[in-house]
Amino acid sequence: MMIEPTMKTILPLDPRLLVHAQAKLDRLTKPRGSLGRLEELAAQYVAISRDENPSCPKARVLTLAADHGVVAEGVSAYPSSVTAQMVANFLNGGAAINVLARQVGADVQVVDMGVAGNLDHLVGLVSRKIGHGTKNMVMGPAMSRDEAIRSVEIGIELVDQAVADGMGVVATGEMGIGNTTSSAAITAVMTGQPISRITGRGTGVDDEGLNRKRRVIEQALRINDPQAGDAFDVLSKVGGFEIGGLVGIILGGAACRIPVVLDGFIAGAAALLAVTLAPTCREYLIASHQSAEDGHGIVLEQLRLRPLLDLELRLGEGTGACLAIGLLQSSLLLMTQMATFDDAGVDERQTTEPENV
Amino acid sequence: MMIEPTMKTILPLDPRLLVHAQAKLDRLTKPRGSLGRLEELAAQYVAISRDENPSCPKARVLTLAADHGVVAEGVSAYPSSVTAQMVANFLNGGAAINVLARQVGADVQVVDMGVAGNLDHLVGLVSRKIGHGTKNMVMGPAMSRDEAIRSVEIGIELVDQAVADGMGVVATGEMGIGNTTSSAAITAVMTGQPISRITGRGTGVDDEGLNRKRRVIEQALRINDPQAGDAFDVLSKVGGFEIGGLVGIILGGAACRIPVVLDGFIAGAAALLAVTLAPTCREYLIASHQSAEDGHGIVLEQLRLRPLLDLELRLGEGTGACLAIGLLQSSLLLMTQMATFDDAGVDERQTTEPENV
Repeated sequence: MMIEPTMKTILPLDPRLLVHAQAKLDRLTKPRGSLGRLEELAAQYVAISRDENPSCPKARVLTLAADHGVVAEGVSAYPSSVTAQMVANFLNGGAAINVLARQVGADVQVVDMGVAGNLDHLVGLVSRKIGHGTKNMVMGPAMSRDEAIRSVEIGIELVDQAVADGMGVVATGEMGIGNTTSSAAITAVMTGQPISRITGRGTGVDDEGLNRKRRVIEQALRINDPQAGDAFDVLSKVGGFEIGGLVGIILGGAACRIPVVLDGFIAGAAALLAVTLAPTCREYLIASHQSAEDGHGIVLEQLRLRPLLDLELRLGEGTGACLAIGLLQSSLLLMTQMATFDDAGVDERQTTEPENV
Repeated sequence: MMIEPTMKTILPLDPRLLVHAQAKLDRLTKPRGSLGRLEELAAQYVAISRDENPSCPKARVLTLAADHGVVAEGVSAYPSSVTAQMVANFLNGGAAINVLARQVGADVQVVDMGVAGNLDHLVGLVSRKIGHGTKNMVMGPAMSRDEAIRSVEIGIELVDQAVADGMGVVATGEMGIGNTTSSAAITAVMTGQPISRITGRGTGVDDEGLNRKRRVIEQALRINDPQAGDAFDVLSKVGGFEIGGLVGIILGGAACRIPVVLDGFIAGAAALLAVTLAPTCREYLIASHQSAEDGHGIVLEQLRLRPLLDLELRLGEGTGACLAIGLLQSSLLLMTQMATFDDAGVDERQTTEPENV
């Protein structure tokens, strides 16, 4: 399999590049550090890309779609049919992710990782279908171990293609009715936190639906007994095809030395699996936002990532990640277009001795 | 004076427009409310502009510059000369605000409200100079009451001009070495909170400088005894020319029914004065970000405004406001470009009865 060599290619960031980038930022006409997290972001990009004078990278949102057998348990406010319908909406340019990607000049690649139903008629869809949705995880594993491995490999291949197409950053997107249930199950295993703290309303289930969702996750974990130390075990037992794809995107991005902008809760669950496989990939991640979904804060804490935005988003698709691409662009434009103190003839800071005491 | 009639023109937002806007957002292909604060922002814009199908408005950042006599007390890490130097930098397009404004397609109007020194040679500068910096507020009032009134009037005039130029949104920007000291003094008066909680490091004073800054503010308040119920009293005694201009921009924007995007701490201090004059103007404000400056959280709490961003910015100039203009654009593009459930043939939410229990 290709996953092992990919994992081995992932190198820690060179701290000297972070220092160089900060030194460059400190020469710009602003008080030191006054651009806050935008300075961190620019420095991280320099260290990842090894380009000390970076222009704004071309960006691709990889929106992976798949269905989840567990939806039969009544865990979502929407029927599984919506996954395929939204895929068509993405391809027609009418979804939120299309609007936000256009705004930042990113392209959107929509990938069928395992949507229930035949989508061959949809023009523009990248077909990497592993199955027609996962199996219902309360009855046994959602997929086989081989399928889990294949889903991660597909994610790696998608990033390789993105880099071949000239992309300098990728963002994770997903669409899959039922996938907050799967992500909550993964998060419960990988963090050890109680299901009640981790499980949220997803697309908007009511109180009864939320309780049912929690019971379903409990049952799935009891029946499958996924092992936290084995990411493929967890992915196959309670994961999803698109979630495996996201794991691959994270590993592949880090291996290709491009930043991976994580969207929300589902991307976070995938990242928990990815860092188990290759801890260093964490350095290549940008946490775009803190989602309104209950478990996301716990995920980000475990990943030791601070989200850039907190706008109470809970849509997925890559929407939060797209907004963060805008901030990444801001940070790089600032680093490369601002005048330095020398250029602009602006006095640097003084000691604060009063003139007048 | 023109301030009274402007204040009288400010009307509360029509709640029906907020309801209409939300109904429109609820028809879009996404779970209800899943775009979080972007939905609020779009609805607020509709209610302010009274345009139910708004395109992205032209935006202007009004960056007002002035100097502060209190800098003689050693309250800043930078000398007053930096104010004029940064004005030149703004006009040359080399400052952070220029970069971020270009990114969102906003123009930047740089206004000399009272910079120390003659700036007549600077091409592109809008001169509305009230004086060569304020007086040192530890010795008495920073300016006369007439000057305070004039500064607010200028702000109103600047917004009138912006609207005449086709702008549909304005952002507040400022540059003035010493103006976090003035803003902290205003905030102390208007919120009643202790100076120690409100006073931050501004451009980056050290511990000794911070203590000195606090003592200077205490002294200025003791000597001038500004009256919280009288905004012009506070503005004249411990304010600044650019801060008065920002008060006028807030009042003028609300009177012209365009949103005013507040930048950070200095804009917040101006907003505290503006809402004393005309409480309804609050409905026209967008709090762009939570600044790293200590007192800003207290200001936003008193204004009952929730910031959109928290990126540890503390630069001013209008930089945080520019980033929020990007989010406002996102929100309006989403509202007007996304497909509806009907258009896209996507199923709406179901009750969450399980198929399978």
